[in-house]
Amino acid sequence: MNGAESLVKTLLACGVDTCFANPGTSEMHFVAALDRIPGMRCVLGLFEGVVTGAADGYARMADKPAATLLHCGPGLANGLANLHNARRAQTPVINIVGDQATYHRPLDAPLTADTEGWARPVSVWTRTATHAASVGADAATAVQAACAAPGGVASLILPSDVCWDAGGIVAAPLAPIPVSKVSPDAVQQAARVLRSGQPTLIVLAGTALREAPLADAHRIAAATDARLITPMSNARVARGRGRFNVDRVPYSGDAARARLAGIRNVILVGAPPPVTFFAYPGKSPRPYPEDAEVFVLARPEQDLAEALARLADELGAPAVSLPGSIASHDIAKGAVTSEAVAQTLTALLPEQAIVVEESVSFGRAFYPGTVHAAPHDWLQLTGGAIGDGLPLATGAAVAAPGRRVVALQADGSGMYTLQSLWTMAREKLDVTVVVLANRKYAILLGELAGVGANPGKTALDMLDIGNPDLNWVQLANGMGVEAARADDMARFAELFSMANARPGPFVIELVI
Amino acid sequence: MNGAESLVKTLLACGVDTCFANPGTSEMHFVAALDRIPGMRCVLGLFEGVVTGAADGYARMADKPAATLLHCGPGLANGLANLHNARRAQTPVINIVGDQATYHRPLDAPLTADTEGWARPVSVWTRTATHAASVGADAATAVQAACAAPGGVASLILPSDVCWDAGGIVAAPLAPIPVSKVSPDAVQQAARVLRSGQPTLIVLAGTALREAPLADAHRIAAATDARLITPMSNARVARGRGRFNVDRVPYSGDAARARLAGIRNVILVGAPPPVTFFAYPGKSPRPYPEDAEVFVLARPEQDLAEALARLADELGAPAVSLPGSIASHDIAKGAVTSEAVAQTLTALLPEQAIVVEESVSFGRAFYPGTVHAAPHDWLQLTGGAIGDGLPLATGAAVAAPGRRVVALQADGSGMYTLQSLWTMAREKLDVTVVVLANRKYAILLGELAGVGANPGKTALDMLDIGNPDLNWVQLANGMGVEAARADDMARFAELFSMANARPGPFVIELVI
Repeated sequence: MNGAESLVKTLLACGVDTCFANPGTSEMHFVAALDRIPGMRCVLGLFEGVVTGAADGYARMADKPAATLLHCGPGLANGLANLHNARRAQTPVINIVGDQATYHRPLDAPLTADTEGWARPVSVWTRTATHAASVGADAATAVQAACAAPGGVASLILPSDVCWDAGGIVAAPLAPIPVSKVSPDAVQQAARVLRSGQPTLIVLAGTALREAPLADAHRIAAATDARLITPMSNARVARGRGRFNVDRVPYSGDAARARLAGIRNVILVGAPPPVTFFAYPGKSPRPYPEDAEVFVLARPEQDLAEALARLADELGAPAVSLPGSIASHDIAKGAVTSEAVAQTLTALLPEQAIVVEESVSFGRAFYPGTVHAAPHDWLQLTGGAIGDGLPLATGAAVAAPGRRVVALQADGSGMYTLQSLWTMAREKLDVTVVVLANRKYAILLGELAGVGANPGKTALDMLDIGNPDLNWVQLANGMGVEAARADDMARFAELFSMANARPGPFVIELVI
Repeated sequence: MNGAESLVKTLLACGVDTCFANPGTSEMHFVAALDRIPGMRCVLGLFEGVVTGAADGYARMADKPAATLLHCGPGLANGLANLHNARRAQTPVINIVGDQATYHRPLDAPLTADTEGWARPVSVWTRTATHAASVGADAATAVQAACAAPGGVASLILPSDVCWDAGGIVAAPLAPIPVSKVSPDAVQQAARVLRSGQPTLIVLAGTALREAPLADAHRIAAATDARLITPMSNARVARGRGRFNVDRVPYSGDAARARLAGIRNVILVGAPPPVTFFAYPGKSPRPYPEDAEVFVLARPEQDLAEALARLADELGAPAVSLPGSIASHDIAKGAVTSEAVAQTLTALLPEQAIVVEESVSFGRAFYPGTVHAAPHDWLQLTGGAIGDGLPLATGAAVAAPGRRVVALQADGSGMYTLQSLWTMAREKLDVTVVVLANRKYAILLGELAGVGANPGKTALDMLDIGNPDLNWVQLANGMGVEAARADDMARFAELFSMANARPGPFVIELVI
């Protein structure tokens, strides 16, 4: 057995059975091993940003990691932006990067690059395999590291001779690293703060955004008048009719500070202290008052659901009933607005849909406006590195066959990784892509206005992605995906219903 | 004057007047400064790989650097693969990466990443600006560093507050770092080796591949029976009718070793010792005999043209007349083959065309088969990070208005940075793109065969980019570029002539 075969068998033994790949020459022995050993589903992406973003989307829905397969330092580099997003989402990923043979690397052939150096900033664990005999054990360690709470990217760099050399040994899966529970002190401290009567904010993130812990958080809020909030962008939130809703910290620092004015205490549950996305001259980088005190109920690597349940019990908080949900089937008609799209989504979103939202500026009404949609999961761009939406949708669809994926995709961001559409077509994934075509970097036009400039042609040209207009119907067709354009809400509703009812992908270019 | 304004004015004073950009929020003050200060041509790319590859192509033809404008660590990450190629091409690039404000960075907002850590491996110079008062001087130093022979990427990381703070100071250009000349010893040593009568190989790279030094190299070869060769991939080679031709080291290690069998001495002129692209089990990583002795006439940072001229004089080598050139106007007809495409290129390539070649497997006949084409420059993928061809063509066309750019582009690689087509349309660049559509990663199928595997469905699916077939006519149209398909050589010749004669870009999908 060569090293590559031991690696594939170890991954399968560890439950890793999906590999998003864009291989090259140095990975051919690994490809050959994947070919010989049954059990691994291999999904090709035509660009590495598709591969890494899909691995992120897959694990967010499967709650277990997929492997990637990337080609040398530059192949990794192409996937880094979406690994950055995966890092911020705390997503487990087994990030496999083929590389030059151990003895070839010092010769500095053209493709040789600082593979480890590029991997380390996005990874919780980075290792370059050195021998066929140990690469199986390396893989088992990578899986353990990636899956340790809260989850992260484990990068295994794979020199080609480690793959082709004989002497591979299949490693047994390592025991998962137990999730630590929060201390009684942390629970009691949070309870004391909540009983103080002072305005208190509870910031929920990570696994606290699943259905059961959200219910416990609402018990706590109802019993103490605490306010609940989540970061602006989250890896996965369970929401819709029959579930408890939590608002997000607004993107705009001004809006966030207005919303959180008067807060005296901030309790963190798996979240870092909230921070504005960017700094602005003369403005606080914190969305909560500077003099608020910050407490930690649970760190991201701790058991967030258990901590919330214990805190609710400590407070003697009774169960709360769900607020009334309105099942509306009124679709919007007329002009395309953010609110109108949210209304139609509420009416038409399929049960248990997976919504992948990278709607940037236009979609600000989508999240608040879909509280009463059918139960669904909501996945977001977590690290601000645009171009994650279409890859996330691809991976989520691979992870959750039978559930419809709805990608709400800004056009500028969508262009970063439009190659995802081809993978959706090849794998016949049930994805409805709604491209929000405003033909500009609208968020940046707002930011430029904030700079106080009266923009001229040079600036406008850098923020305008019209001239020429992109035609998403042709782009989708060019990659084998059927597509149509909607210019008003009636046509959108018609296309959206049709797309969700048919198997495979469909792109709706919604001109806004 | 704020920091951003001092930066723009300094760049202009240093002769940097072109900026390939994909800005974000943290760059808005820089965008506003570009807007207020006339003189900088800003070219938008819809993905950072387009931006960095275009900056590479621009400088290869302009012989001076362009600036990039990228957004934070992830924006840089998206551009790294083509910066890796620029590094291997020794191309000067002023790589400007906007980033979080100095005081915001420690708060670890979602987009915060290890910008410096990612930049360093591709850069000859990396600095994070710290104050508005010094960012002008930083920029002048960056230009000096990027332009120091042999040229490289100078990465200037630009926190947003350094841009918006008042107190910017325009810096004067710094004196260029002089190119060092080789020592008399190096010339005499090379002359001794060449006079020994032993089979000797001279490896030419970098600026040795311009017209005059190639003529001197041929004087040396004619006088001493030395053999001339260049690396497989080069940043820019002057070639065609009326110029001296030099063959390249073959890509295949076996073919290279066969070609270079019997060589006793290797003399390097701006080149590293040749190495195979990848390692293969049991095969030498060197294309020349293991016992050959390696000498250095000139290191990459030295004056290569001057060294060759001095060596030719030292040897008393007389001028040589050009070999006979055959101006052929016979286009190929019938089935599409690599040789047929080369024949048609020879017949139809416009005078002073810039050929950008990322043809990977199919194009192996293109270079040897176009020796007698009209005089042209030939630009290649230098670092093996695929997806450089369309961006290089974009940048070369910006640098050289009035010269036709012909991009010979493999389909799999072309998909990495297809967004380039949109920039070509917007800027109305005179580029003829020939997409070589074999609908597979053909080079990898060859490599897989080399692994000895009898490939099954899993492997073939990872190397086949058909199912569904890409439609490059639709993809190009979707980005505003006119396009047509050719299935045989007659149609190809017709489209190629038409495309080269019209202004603006045109895509020919050549089905092979």
